Amino acid sequence: MSDTTPPRGFPDAELQGRVAKAQHLMGQRELDALLVTCETDVRYFTGYLTRFWESPTRPWFLVVPASGAPVAVIPSIGAALMAQTWVRDIRTWSSPDLEDDGITLLRDTLAELTPETAKIGLPDGPETHVRMPWADVKRLTHDLGTRSLTGDGNILRDLRRIKSPLEVDKIRTACAVAARAFQRVPEIAGEGVPLDRIFRQFQMLCLQEGADWVPYLAGGAEPGGYGDVISPARPVPLQQGDILMLDTGLVWDGYFCDYDRNWSVGPVAPPVADAYKTLIDATDAAAEIARPGRRAADLFHAMNDILSKGAGATDAGRLGHGLGMSLTEWPSFIPADDTLLAPGMVLTLEPGIAVNGKILVHEEDILITEGAPEFLSPRATAEMQVI
Amino acid sequence: MSDTTPPRGFPDAELQGRVAKAQHLMGQRELDALLVTCETDVRYFTGYLTRFWESPTRPWFLVVPASGAPVAVIPSIGAALMAQTWVRDIRTWSSPDLEDDGITLLRDTLAELTPETAKIGLPDGPETHVRMPWADVKRLTHDLGTRSLTGDGNILRDLRRIKSPLEVDKIRTACAVAARAFQRVPEIAGEGVPLDRIFRQFQMLCLQEGADWVPYLAGGAEPGGYGDVISPARPVPLQQGDILMLDTGLVWDGYFCDYDRNWSVGPVAPPVADAYKTLIDATDAAAEIARPGRRAADLFHAMNDILSKGAGATDAGRLGHGLGMSLTEWPSFIPADDTLLAPGMVLTLEPGIAVNGKILVHEEDILITEGAPEFLSPRATAEMQVI
Repeated sequence: MSDTTPPRGFPDAELQGRVAKAQHLMGQRELDALLVTCETDVRYFTGYLTRFWESPTRPWFLVVPASGAPVAVIPSIGAALMAQTWVRDIRTWSSPDLEDDGITLLRDTLAELTPETAKIGLPDGPETHVRMPWADVKRLTHDLGTRSLTGDGNILRDLRRIKSPLEVDKIRTACAVAARAFQRVPEIAGEGVPLDRIFRQFQMLCLQEGADWVPYLAGGAEPGGYGDVISPARPVPLQQGDILMLDTGLVWDGYFCDYDRNWSVGPVAPPVADAYKTLIDATDAAAEIARPGRRAADLFHAMNDILSKGAGATDAGRLGHGLGMSLTEWPSFIPADDTLLAPGMVLTLEPGIAVNGKILVHEEDILITEGAPEFLSPRATAEMQVI
Repeated sequence: MSDTTPPRGFPDAELQGRVAKAQHLMGQRELDALLVTCETDVRYFTGYLTRFWESPTRPWFLVVPASGAPVAVIPSIGAALMAQTWVRDIRTWSSPDLEDDGITLLRDTLAELTPETAKIGLPDGPETHVRMPWADVKRLTHDLGTRSLTGDGNILRDLRRIKSPLEVDKIRTACAVAARAFQRVPEIAGEGVPLDRIFRQFQMLCLQEGADWVPYLAGGAEPGGYGDVISPARPVPLQQGDILMLDTGLVWDGYFCDYDRNWSVGPVAPPVADAYKTLIDATDAAAEIARPGRRAADLFHAMNDILSKGAGATDAGRLGHGLGMSLTEWPSFIPADDTLLAPGMVLTLEPGIAVNGKILVHEEDILITEGAPEFLSPRATAEMQVI
């Protein structure tokens, strides 16, 4: 890691400020509490960072009341670590409990913190899910009696999609780690090297360059492009004419980067070079207009107009998205997303193009500022790299 | 990787057999279809393996009708990879769709495949969740009209907790990879080395020894034990008297290992040596009775009886669990879990003990057979390793 590595974690004041903002929005939306169940949402308010969520066994709950500090209702195994956050009111049960996995404790907590006719908001919109058994959602709904569970009015989405400067620092660091790893790909990839070995060694490079862990790596390598961008790597050796793509979501202090790079094994065939240049042109066109006041849909159209002059966009469903504590977040670059861009949004520009029955995808990470966007990934040039 | 590395994936016949078993149980439970939404459940029936589920954006659906092959209702970005499985009926939409993220397509599919008064089972019990927006669960419930969503009667749990020989081979391979990495810990750990560097380098060892990826690593290093077992690593150098613990869930072909190892930095203090020996004794006692016909609770008591003669068990909530496609699965070694052990169950024995205000945890992975269990992790001896 370089000398410019930012500090880890967040000052309590920032976390408390997030709660205050949520409580302000809860007032507007007439919610008496928020109930969050997912890793990212719990961490957003508390700073609670652990890889233990990889275990799907235990539910975790955080209640944000209309005023005052949040209350953690969590398995006892998490109490010691939660006590290191600014959260002081930590209520635990011994989980897993096959009869009552925290539901009574959660209900009692909600009853204590909210009025009898309270509306309790749970994130329920796009890109969310409720991380607890569905039978328990129904049981809680029943047990709450006069209190009701309802949607959160997208409060978590609206807060989380604007990153603070400290959050941006973490994503910038993750992007820089990936940049150093991408730079070293010629050390590990070349004609004859199987793709699965490249995947393994690229993850090692990410760790060596400072990643905390590497939750996501996708890619492909086939002649003139690849068939899709989500397959696991196969033990197929690279050959002349293959286009190798690696797309990584590595994590630094709980925040992701998400961008890719392409390499040609040997000279770049002219149709591939043209298609790749089209991807860079599309990225540039989106970056050109990626400023406050523009909408997510505008960036879709800026990219799609250029891709359409080639063979057209791929069927990935969108041409980029937000990122942060999750690999992918709101908004989406699709025609229907009218999200207004605002300073602090961290976004990927991710145009894809079809070429000779294959696809090529390029991706960069940018930060929306008051002026031109800042590239958090080192902006690629229009010529594909050769290995 | 050694020469004994098993083949990747599963023959179609095995995947089809899983569907047939599910359909048999659906008949018993009077369900007209199963609807699964989580990575592991979709993969269980289809073999569909991708790291793309790291992106929480898009919902994925697989419908298992009362008879016949499953139908995938998935985002278009996944179609090419799903077409490589045995699933032939693949219905896609362009996701994310802010107005209708697959719900109408899913409803129409369910309407086509089931009678008008169908009961459609969705996993809803312990250790499950529904991976789609809660608003969409409610919308689907409404749109299904005369058809109803209900629990799956634990069909997925009952099937998945018995592993096939090919599944066991993958877990055995993951365990062997971890064993080689653990063996090499003295290369990367010692007095003065910061814990976060050890975490990074241990993940690199796992990859070098053949892991596909390393979704989980936890641990600790403090004088005479550790404070908890789920914290991320801090940049604190190891010192004489520290007990280093590393607990990894690495993946080979989509299956986890999950076990830990402990090392003493310098000579082991007598109370630590005693506590560690108690953990090994507890593990041995559980292994001794881990045979078909015994219950999960019996293994809890076998371990807890021995731990209670020391300072008592920790508050982790259980003393071991199943593992497989998830890092942790049913059953749980707790007093209330009366699951009958059966051949093919892969389980962790995971006793924890308090010692001088710290904790120590030991973990092994075993396979239940007709006779004595097979240790998939290389059974540890009663003396803690020293570095």
